[in-house]
Amino acid sequence: MKFILATFIIFAMPFFQAVTKKKVIFFGDSITQAGVQPNGYITKVGEMAAKDKKADQYEFVGAGIGGNKVYDLYLRVEDDVLSKNPDIVVIYIGVNDVWHKQSSGTGTDYDKFEKFYNALLKKFSDKNIKVVLATPAVVGERTDNTNQLDGDLNRYSNLIRSIAEKNRLPLVDLRKGFLEYGKQNNPENKEQGILTTDRVHLNEKGNEFVATEMWKAIQSVK
Amino acid sequence: MKFILATFIIFAMPFFQAVTKKKVIFFGDSITQAGVQPNGYITKVGEMAAKDKKADQYEFVGAGIGGNKVYDLYLRVEDDVLSKNPDIVVIYIGVNDVWHKQSSGTGTDYDKFEKFYNALLKKFSDKNIKVVLATPAVVGERTDNTNQLDGDLNRYSNLIRSIAEKNRLPLVDLRKGFLEYGKQNNPENKEQGILTTDRVHLNEKGNEFVATEMWKAIQSVK
Amino acid sequence: MKFILATFIIFAMPFFQAVTKKKVIFFGDSITQAGVQPNGYITKVGEMAAKDKKADQYEFVGAGIGGNKVYDLYLRVEDDVLSKNPDIVVIYIGVNDVWHKQSSGTGTDYDKFEKFYNALLKKFSDKNIKVVLATPAVVGERTDNTNQLDGDLNRYSNLIRSIAEKNRLPLVDLRKGFLEYGKQNNPENKEQGILTTDRVHLNEKGNEFVATEMWKAIQSVK
Amino acid sequence: MKFILATFIIFAMPFFQAVTKKKVIFFGDSITQAGVQPNGYITKVGEMAAKDKKADQYEFVGAGIGGNKVYDLYLRVEDDVLSKNPDIVVIYIGVNDVWHKQSSGTGTDYDKFEKFYNALLKKFSDKNIKVVLATPAVVGERTDNTNQLDGDLNRYSNLIRSIAEKNRLPLVDLRKGFLEYGKQNNPENKEQGILTTDRVHLNEKGNEFVATEMWKAIQSVK
Repeated sequence: MKFILATFIIFAMPFFQAVTKKKVIFFGDSITQAGVQPNGYITKVGEMAAKDKKADQYEFVGAGIGGNKVYDLYLRVEDDVLSKNPDIVVIYIGVNDVWHKQSSGTGTDYDKFEKFYNALLKKFSDKNIKVVLATPAVVGERTDNTNQLDGDLNRYSNLIRSIAEKNRLPLVDLRKGFLEYGKQNNPENKEQGILTTDRVHLNEKGNEFVATEMWKAIQSVK
Repeated sequence: MKFILATFIIFAMPFFQAVTKKKVIFFGDSITQAGVQPNGYITKVGEMAAKDKKADQYEFVGAGIGGNKVYDLYLRVEDDVLSKNPDIVVIYIGVNDVWHKQSSGTGTDYDKFEKFYNALLKKFSDKNIKVVLATPAVVGERTDNTNQLDGDLNRYSNLIRSIAEKNRLPLVDLRKGFLEYGKQNNPENKEQGILTTDRVHLNEKGNEFVATEMWKAIQSVK
Repeated sequence: MKFILATFIIFAMPFFQAVTKKKVIFFGDSITQAGVQPNGYITKVGEMAAKDKKADQYEFVGAGIGGNKVYDLYLRVEDDVLSKNPDIVVIYIGVNDVWHKQSSGTGTDYDKFEKFYNALLKKFSDKNIKVVLATPAVVGERTDNTNQLDGDLNRYSNLIRSIAEKNRLPLVDLRKGFLEYGKQNNPENKEQGILTTDRVHLNEKGNEFVATEMWKAIQSVK
Repeated sequence: MKFILATFIIFAMPFFQAVTKKKVIFFGDSITQAGVQPNGYITKVGEMAAKDKKADQYEFVGAGIGGNKVYDLYLRVEDDVLSKNPDIVVIYIGVNDVWHKQSSGTGTDYDKFEKFYNALLKKFSDKNIKVVLATPAVVGERTDNTNQLDGDLNRYSNLIRSIAEKNRLPLVDLRKGFLEYGKQNNPENKEQGILTTDRVHLNEKGNEFVATEMWKAIQSVK
């Protein structure tokens, strides 16, 4: 009997080890809120993990709220992220920080964006949580730099890139990726309908695109 | 010998008690940053306390930073306020939350203003720190509701009033006070020069006015 | 024969005089564009004229286009108004000049508003066309001066009032009228649903209200 | 004696004909207002004409007013341009139409910009006045598309380019020129100080640059 039990334990161990999944929280705005829907990018990341036989190594959790800017993430980081003890957090924010300047006069100043972004990073590093950064993709898909907010989106994305570099963090550079995709696939220079439904939110291909990039970055986290 | 020492302690106690001054931190924006200058409102509160023979009961500290909105206070509340163990905090914020909507597209949404304001209050109540609230006074001193931001300033002030009422907190209603003062003292309906130098920042009389109201409210804190 | 003809002419004259109707053009934005619909305020002015047995004295024409600001009126005044030889023009503009500052960053500066408004008046006075002015009513129906744009709407309305006074022109003071109506009929301080459907555009009662005031003013034109 | 005089007149005629200078009016905003100053771009165009021995063929007149947008030009086109019977008008507008969206909420909608621009062109073509167009150069000189207003400046410039093409009008493409100049001469990606003093208004080199391009275009007008 003892022999049998011991054998069982030995063989079962790999299984139990695998059970300690890495919890990945996607922390963001409405794009991430929609990410957990059936065709959403987070759902697709899960499917990609399954396809790669890694479903048992990760747990993917969405923590996106519509209209969120960087300081909204900071306000709810304790309740919505830290309290859930994630191993990895993907910070995907910035669209509203730029967009709301124009749509409602309530965007985020560049210097404040940097401060809150760094304050978020400190919260995670204090708890040894790994972080993946992402640049805001688009508000308008025209590829010739004629979308109204291109200047600011480029600038805030540059900031995120430099924060990633300075802190040696993996970066999902969606802004760069979307532009390159558009240059290949948007010959008519359309404002929407390429990777978004409405200039901002992801369509089927957009979710696929974001999921692919996210999944690569998540796997790169040591 | 023991008897003498005990006597000394007993008589000395009232003296030592008085030495434990209440630390009052004024937490705000550029108006509060200027408050610690020679003619600033915080300096004047100190002078009023001295005149009322209460200088030994209070210590007044300025913690204002230009351009701050409610979420900036939240970001620095630990470093600039909680770490200094105040007994009382005066929250004087809101002008930039409204103004920056118009001047740079980076004001604060009404619902976010409320959230961050309440989050600040929770930080203080968790540490048993007493709080005094203040409404944002003016951006423009015309008294016939024709200053561009009057609508929003009234709305955000109403919110602060209702938060004060709900939490039974003392309120320095500067918005109401400035309007009443203006109706008496601004017959030409000037945009500035009554209690402000530039529509927003306090002139000599403005500092006097704010100091008087603040000093009353601070003394009312049990 | 000559006698008969002369008699005919004499008796017929009143009839023919009555046929020369005064043409009234309502010149404005989306509110005026909707005014010609079955329940619109211009339609109702026509019904009021009929009820008052004055249908044969007036012809009412709508010239409203959605999104128009004062300079849009100036751009199309030749084509849409002067070319139609009106006797009276009602200028009902200003909502978008204020509103678009906040909604799309494309409102009208106060000094420019005045310049274009006066340029319009000159176009009309040069052709001896009578003019009726109107103030922009509301963007939000709260009656305690907490609608975001109240300050500017009050200011631009004051400007129109002073232009009316200076030029001795009849004024339909909708801003004042709506506020007074709201103080009587909006005890819950609602943002919409009193005289508007959506904070701006007229509901049934709103159309009735505007039509009544317009009809009074039009009849006052000598 | 009579013979001599007659001969003089006959030979002098070509000289006097040359005296009928082409009047060139520069129609624009503060950049053009500053253009008539000692080192301004209009002054420099005059110097270039003199250097090229063509001073007697042209008269250069500035008609720039600070803060002007396209509709301001339309409002004053009769008084400030048409009444002066120019042969050529250089339309140099667009910076404020974009910039004021962000700085004061009073920029110009894209579709309105097009309408007023075309309305201006009609005014000139109706009087057989030749026209030279110009794109708005910069609001911020960074060359990596990170200036806040780059998207809109590119879009409005594209519109002016297409209007020029459609109407076969000479175009001074300052936006393109400034960017190319910056890529050569702004290795540190500075926001100002390359061709501007303050991100918008021309420094010495900027005036030189604009004058050179303007002078080329003016000479190309048949």
